[in-house]
Amino acid sequence: MVLEKINHANDIKKIPKEELPVLAQEIRSFLIEKLSATGGHLASNLGVIELTMALHLTLTLPADKIIWDVGHQSYTHKILTGRRDGFDSLRKLGGLSGFPKREESPCDVFDTGHSSTSISAALGIARARDLAGEDYHVAAVIGDGSFTGGMVYEALNNASQMKTNFIIILNDNGMSISENVGGFSSYLSSLRTNEAYTSLKKAAEDVLRHSGGGESAIRRIRGMKNNLKSILLPGAFFEELGIKYFGPIDGYNLDRCVTVFQNAQKVEGPVIVHVLTKKGKGYEPAERMPARFHGTGPFKIDTGLPARKKAKADWSDIFSTVMCKEGKRTPNLCAVTAAMPDGTGLKRFRGMYPDRFFDVGIAEAHAVTFSAGLAVGGMIPVFAVYSSFLQRGFDQIVHDVCLQNLHVIFAIDRGGLVGADGETHQGIFDLSYLSMIPNMTVVAPKNKWELADLLKWAIRKAESPVAIRYPRGSAFDGLEEFRAPVRYGEWEILYDESDICLLATGSMVQTALEVRARLKKEGANCTLINCRFIKPLDEAVLREAAGSHNLLVTMEENVLAGGFGSLVLECLNQFGEDVPVECVALPDAYIEAGSVELLKAETALDAESIYKRIRTRMIGLYA
Amino acid sequence: MVLEKINHANDIKKIPKEELPVLAQEIRSFLIEKLSATGGHLASNLGVIELTMALHLTLTLPADKIIWDVGHQSYTHKILTGRRDGFDSLRKLGGLSGFPKREESPCDVFDTGHSSTSISAALGIARARDLAGEDYHVAAVIGDGSFTGGMVYEALNNASQMKTNFIIILNDNGMSISENVGGFSSYLSSLRTNEAYTSLKKAAEDVLRHSGGGESAIRRIRGMKNNLKSILLPGAFFEELGIKYFGPIDGYNLDRCVTVFQNAQKVEGPVIVHVLTKKGKGYEPAERMPARFHGTGPFKIDTGLPARKKAKADWSDIFSTVMCKEGKRTPNLCAVTAAMPDGTGLKRFRGMYPDRFFDVGIAEAHAVTFSAGLAVGGMIPVFAVYSSFLQRGFDQIVHDVCLQNLHVIFAIDRGGLVGADGETHQGIFDLSYLSMIPNMTVVAPKNKWELADLLKWAIRKAESPVAIRYPRGSAFDGLEEFRAPVRYGEWEILYDESDICLLATGSMVQTALEVRARLKKEGANCTLINCRFIKPLDEAVLREAAGSHNLLVTMEENVLAGGFGSLVLECLNQFGEDVPVECVALPDAYIEAGSVELLKAETALDAESIYKRIRTRMIGLYA
Repeated sequence: MVLEKINHANDIKKIPKEELPVLAQEIRSFLIEKLSATGGHLASNLGVIELTMALHLTLTLPADKIIWDVGHQSYTHKILTGRRDGFDSLRKLGGLSGFPKREESPCDVFDTGHSSTSISAALGIARARDLAGEDYHVAAVIGDGSFTGGMVYEALNNASQMKTNFIIILNDNGMSISENVGGFSSYLSSLRTNEAYTSLKKAAEDVLRHSGGGESAIRRIRGMKNNLKSILLPGAFFEELGIKYFGPIDGYNLDRCVTVFQNAQKVEGPVIVHVLTKKGKGYEPAERMPARFHGTGPFKIDTGLPARKKAKADWSDIFSTVMCKEGKRTPNLCAVTAAMPDGTGLKRFRGMYPDRFFDVGIAEAHAVTFSAGLAVGGMIPVFAVYSSFLQRGFDQIVHDVCLQNLHVIFAIDRGGLVGADGETHQGIFDLSYLSMIPNMTVVAPKNKWELADLLKWAIRKAESPVAIRYPRGSAFDGLEEFRAPVRYGEWEILYDESDICLLATGSMVQTALEVRARLKKEGANCTLINCRFIKPLDEAVLREAAGSHNLLVTMEENVLAGGFGSLVLECLNQFGEDVPVECVALPDAYIEAGSVELLKAETALDAESIYKRIRTRMIGLYA
Repeated sequence: MVLEKINHANDIKKIPKEELPVLAQEIRSFLIEKLSATGGHLASNLGVIELTMALHLTLTLPADKIIWDVGHQSYTHKILTGRRDGFDSLRKLGGLSGFPKREESPCDVFDTGHSSTSISAALGIARARDLAGEDYHVAAVIGDGSFTGGMVYEALNNASQMKTNFIIILNDNGMSISENVGGFSSYLSSLRTNEAYTSLKKAAEDVLRHSGGGESAIRRIRGMKNNLKSILLPGAFFEELGIKYFGPIDGYNLDRCVTVFQNAQKVEGPVIVHVLTKKGKGYEPAERMPARFHGTGPFKIDTGLPARKKAKADWSDIFSTVMCKEGKRTPNLCAVTAAMPDGTGLKRFRGMYPDRFFDVGIAEAHAVTFSAGLAVGGMIPVFAVYSSFLQRGFDQIVHDVCLQNLHVIFAIDRGGLVGADGETHQGIFDLSYLSMIPNMTVVAPKNKWELADLLKWAIRKAESPVAIRYPRGSAFDGLEEFRAPVRYGEWEILYDESDICLLATGSMVQTALEVRARLKKEGANCTLINCRFIKPLDEAVLREAAGSHNLLVTMEENVLAGGFGSLVLECLNQFGEDVPVECVALPDAYIEAGSVELLKAETALDAESIYKRIRTRMIGLYA
């Protein structure tokens, strides 16, 4: 195995040239095999094996810096920097992260997870290098999907002015997680298929190669490019912004990648190298279904089918179903996604109502304000988005939606702990950052029927902004017997007793059921309230509960600061209600990757921990 | 006066053509005269008088929709829609807003205040129009400065795909508030000065004009453009994104503007009209000092000098001075601004340390991640930014700075109420949205010396993210005698008594002084603590205060939800401290324009209201 010779950064440079294709194949097989057991981001990683090898062949790590945009495509980078053994614990608690992580290796320069940050980070690092008088290369590797995010243009606009040397590798696979969208995507397609240009470009590269790539060659290629400009001007988009453009090159021609990367390192100022790749490269099921293999669970290698069948409907499935039904009933209902038609469950809606479906690209800020525009124009937009990505639209929610009190609905998927994606994807801030905004209503369903009811309520009855927050994974299908009609600001009392009052919101209602069962076993009286409105709180029910119980327990899958428990404390304080309150919430910390179950136990958000905490508190109260 | 004939929307269409230049001059004089008394955004409004008239001549309001990016340039629009009389109360409490406001007129379609939102909003409205089967024009008016914001590209990328008809008027004055920066700006300059193109373009326009602008003309102009493409390809940047480009045209040639706007309305799909204007047009002092006249206070018309001299140093001035001194002491100190070198006070730093100063454009998201990159590269970046604009970088603070626990300093100017700019600019959410983020430290100075001390502490001693939040306007120069050395997480006890404990943060320390004086007059005992650390709280001092007082009063210029008072309640609850707490904070509402003093009285944040509130509570406690 050539792969066994790779145990540290830069080991790849010792591999004889003729063995490099073998190494690529071995990495490919390694990834398919390992990910078939653990799950992970397969398609994008298969696409960039050769590209990553070429980077490692032309750079010296950790002195040189590679910044991986989003970072889910950094598996080969991890292998080439001595982390092969970690892949059995990939994305597990305490295991190898699925994203670059500074704590994990000095070769990981910048933690990522969200899209479109790499050029900004690379520019900062490159500029710091210049100021410190140091000398190393900085490269950002960024997909064409990430180019739909506005930060990229902010960074390019800034980069061209600074004239700092760094390289942008545009990894163009024609996809975000799903098919790519928008004018920029079409533009790249036109570059991809521009054969006249490609052949001229090749000639230019020959000049470079034969002259050894020095200053004179660069001048010559510049001259050629100016000639080209008068004919066709490919890369015009970048060049107009003042960024030099090389490409497109074949991302599976290792020699070619190495040569061009080497030459790009010699260019003054920022340079884009446009590399053509294919998601899922070399594994037929992933090439055929790149969206399915973007982030996959364990799968059978021979067929590509999931190793385990999905037992229950996901929250996203429920959302999907309701949206499709409501789309018929409500002709002005629109659906908006930021490059997540699959993940959010809007694919079916797209099929049924293509005119009222909008995939705006990885562009959450625009998505929010675009939705505000739709609402002003008389539509009812539902922006379906993952909780941690909606952070990108925070100002737009404050400034464009809530200020004008527009009827925009935010369907916030992956609220709370998300599991294997780890720190960057945990949706643990949304209750806080949404509840502080005037005019916003924030709700969370306890089970799948309630998601349907709340969504219908938000579409049919609400007239102002509503955020509906639900978790990742299987929708809870218990408590079917409790289905009180949704009324603005009203909580649902599930069990009305005395002594202890559990105030649980969203996913924590299920946990609260278990906590209550344990407490009941010991003979404790225990009220359980489904606090489906986080904003506004049901002040009447809360005050009543405060007056009739010895302990209130708030339960939420969100940080404490500014979250549900915090709002409850504010409300009780305002009314001068004096009752002990235990606030069960996530700690003031980033939460690593791991199964949601393990993470809940780690953060004392599981039934066992909560039960113990209540018991201790009650003993204290009665002591 | 021609101006007197303008009393309703569309009245301008009744003005004889030859009187239109007179009208433009009258509007110009009107704005200069009115704003010399009230203050306001003079320079940008003087620049777009003719452009606005041309829009009103070619559109029918309110049926057609104009969306003003940022919106500070909408004064002529307000005049032309019957709001001339409001200008005496411009930007005052209950008066005419300095920005478009739906509540104010049906001709104001979309509230704005922050930059770069207009294309997103226009696209949403245009698409809603199509879906509803309606027929009206939609136009976004956006400055070249706003084009440095990433949302614009997200919107353009999306717009090209939708092929919805709408018009983008690119109001190119070559400026943000200060000089414009970046590659896109250079690109526009190249278009501006491209004479060969201009003459060809003019020929093309002649074709259009003579053929009446119908389909055949459009085909012909397209053909011409394709020919042009092979020679020069101006507008390539837009055209590569799939957006048609017309221009550049002279923004003071009313006829020309009218013709091109009319033709643009006939184009299928999104179209950009590039209009050249000049900030301050027609008023010499504003043309000469456009940044000073961006947002100006009252001034003397003859000289352009401020009507009142600044009595005291602003908070920004103090910040400026310390940055300049620290820049010498700390060679790796960098300063970052998002197009606000003047407003934030970084202009002097730019002059002294040009290499370590970065104006990244109106690009807060990029600014935050770029700063993170600088920190990774060994620099100490200070991003100076207005509170409400930092909302644009929320995710980047969470995801790029705090997750990696990087030593990035946020100097947050205009924290709290800002006055005349109103709803969109109030910096009243920052304590909440920053305190919820793990690893973040949040501080606020009581007076100008403390701003210096905290900033020095953040630069010299801190090793993780620090947000320093200070208000707009004159820096408080009282309490000089209290200058306890800054230590992480420590509050400063100013007066240590009993009974009532005032816990005040930032600007509210000054208010608390007054409140305390009133209470003392009545013989009450009153402790006053300067809570300069909002995160972390000084738990020891807080618990001690809780145990030794009958009432705690938290005071902050921030919304209650998730703010300082909320954090205090969480902390007290966590430690089981049982003491009455009054939380003085801003209500859960957007706060309109007006003087800060009046706004504080309106929101019960003034000394009088707080004093009364405490008195009532104390009577209740002792009853």
